[in-house]
Amino acid sequence: MTAVAVLGSTGSIGRQSLEVIAGLGDRFTVRALAAGHGTDAVAEQLATWPDARWWCPEADARALAPDRWADGGLPELATLEGVDLVVVATTGMAALPATLAALRAGRRVALANKETLITGGHLVSGLLEELGGDALDRLRPVDSEHSAIWQCLAGEEMASVARLVLTASGGPFRGRDAASLAGVTPDEALSHPTWRMGPKITIDSATLVNKAFEVIEAKWLYGLPYSKIDAVIHPQSVVHSLVEFTDGSYKAQLGLPDMRLPIQYALTYPERMSSPARTASPSEWGTLEFAPLPDGAYPAYDVVREAARAGGNRGTILNAADEVAVAAFLDGRVAFPSIADTIAGAVERWGASDEPDLDAIAALDAEVRSALGAELGMAAGSA
Amino acid sequence: MTAVAVLGSTGSIGRQSLEVIAGLGDRFTVRALAAGHGTDAVAEQLATWPDARWWCPEADARALAPDRWADGGLPELATLEGVDLVVVATTGMAALPATLAALRAGRRVALANKETLITGGHLVSGLLEELGGDALDRLRPVDSEHSAIWQCLAGEEMASVARLVLTASGGPFRGRDAASLAGVTPDEALSHPTWRMGPKITIDSATLVNKAFEVIEAKWLYGLPYSKIDAVIHPQSVVHSLVEFTDGSYKAQLGLPDMRLPIQYALTYPERMSSPARTASPSEWGTLEFAPLPDGAYPAYDVVREAARAGGNRGTILNAADEVAVAAFLDGRVAFPSIADTIAGAVERWGASDEPDLDAIAALDAEVRSALGAELGMAAGSA
Repeated sequence: MTAVAVLGSTGSIGRQSLEVIAGLGDRFTVRALAAGHGTDAVAEQLATWPDARWWCPEADARALAPDRWADGGLPELATLEGVDLVVVATTGMAALPATLAALRAGRRVALANKETLITGGHLVSGLLEELGGDALDRLRPVDSEHSAIWQCLAGEEMASVARLVLTASGGPFRGRDAASLAGVTPDEALSHPTWRMGPKITIDSATLVNKAFEVIEAKWLYGLPYSKIDAVIHPQSVVHSLVEFTDGSYKAQLGLPDMRLPIQYALTYPERMSSPARTASPSEWGTLEFAPLPDGAYPAYDVVREAARAGGNRGTILNAADEVAVAAFLDGRVAFPSIADTIAGAVERWGASDEPDLDAIAALDAEVRSALGAELGMAAGSA
Repeated sequence: MTAVAVLGSTGSIGRQSLEVIAGLGDRFTVRALAAGHGTDAVAEQLATWPDARWWCPEADARALAPDRWADGGLPELATLEGVDLVVVATTGMAALPATLAALRAGRRVALANKETLITGGHLVSGLLEELGGDALDRLRPVDSEHSAIWQCLAGEEMASVARLVLTASGGPFRGRDAASLAGVTPDEALSHPTWRMGPKITIDSATLVNKAFEVIEAKWLYGLPYSKIDAVIHPQSVVHSLVEFTDGSYKAQLGLPDMRLPIQYALTYPERMSSPARTASPSEWGTLEFAPLPDGAYPAYDVVREAARAGGNRGTILNAADEVAVAAFLDGRVAFPSIADTIAGAVERWGASDEPDLDAIAALDAEVRSALGAELGMAAGSA
């Protein structure tokens, strides 16, 4: 019996994680739930999983099930006695210390939170090295792209890997010139061709900042240099990513876009079990196309990759600046191309070579959000 | 240092095997060469590999290098002391006893010969079970499709496999109605869209008998029932085959068509090394399409699959009948659709449930060839 903690249980990944766990039958159970919001939803989850301790930051939430309330919040639930695996599906910066605590306590982590590796990849990677063993068994990717790469790496030596190739749908503006995007509206940018996701991640898919962030995550997850991590436009989102090996062979993981598959793989690895994810035969996939990222078409992607390569404290800056810039765009305060400009400006302003510790990450995150938020006319606030 | 025997060294796979081995540097060497024909070519090979013992059935061949001549022919070279791995790339029935002998002597076999598993899959499979260990380490596929599946199975449990999906180009008559093929010429049938191969295998690709034979080979290689082995039309031959897992995930191995890649993988497994095979980035692959095998469009495929499912001695009949029928078609003696009819008739005439031993296979092979050869006006002869 594998006991799971689901942190971020009322978000999209959290809800799908619980659906997957329920479908896996007797071998998995839920022992902890942290819900960012949505007391109705969490009440239902608490009824379904009567052994789960829980926490929710909403006022008066505790009254729902006070006997199982975890006063310690995320840090307590991430390291709860008897839990084997922690699904980290919260949004925001709190996931980083929770992930580090869970790993240090010997828990496996299924990671669906972006901030953790973007801002603290060096801390997570250092801890995994210290802990030893199979780092990908301890820290399991949930993103469809990283899961695809993980699946393709099964049974292969990292020394045999020539290159990781992340697939990108190219977003709703694929094929358009960057210069033509000054007047696009938030609604246009929110029309993602293949995946349904929240507004922030959907805009990140339109700028390809999302893909550049995945490149950073891949670097930390697989321990490869940026020169061995590429992206390719693949509008159909059927090939979830590829690995090129030193002999020239490629392996890919494919299927309809459905997050329940990578979520389940992160839970059941190294086993595979029957899944609720949608499936289709290859002949139902339609035509699969691949194209290089056009030069200059995704300036935000270039900005993020360049800053990532420079390292130091830039992950935290990238994450915070992108979040403020996207919020300002969605709020109608800045034009679409300003997202890239805002990120580039922030990296130039705050970028430094030293790798920050947890406190420095939190302080820098707050500073960037506060300064940029004020400048772009947004209310300051940490995610 | 891995010492290799290359049986069939002057054929296409044999020559490419030697090219690959030469490219692998100090870690591989050639200790045995069996050449079916081509004394000029074998003379060059003997000069390149001065430690190789050798054999060739051509008259007076021995004089080329009598001090290294192996009187015992294939059986001697397949079990030669000091050889670690035997590339079985001969055509014809002699490969089956040679493969069995090599395996029994503890040699690894890289198998590129069709007849071995089509006629003697039950014998090979029984021997591998008796020998124990990793059957796919002992008997390594060289076909691009089976190599793709083998690569996708790395690090996976066979219990997690839902289905193997072999890709088929569909041959030059893809999209044409079976009824319209009565008048096609050998030249039309020899125009394979993606792979350059010998005439027999090219016709087998046009009838899809080749693919049905690969289904049979997959059954013996991977120990799966026919209900879990499918084929899909994929005209571009970039996806070399796929595995569907029980969770609905697909893995595929991809690349430009180049036999040097699967040959090398069979040599270096589980390692991968730099290869002379042509490579291209995904964005250079062009559009990838998949379509189901149209019902009734490939009657020979259906005939072979049905006979394979019935088992017994039918593999030997299928192999011999197809060979005579294809030769008769290439010779202008029968129409293209007669290939399927000839195979179906032979299965009906000689089919039996008992699995034959080596002698029975040889006798049945000779009988089918002789009878069908006479009826189709061909000179009788065993391959």
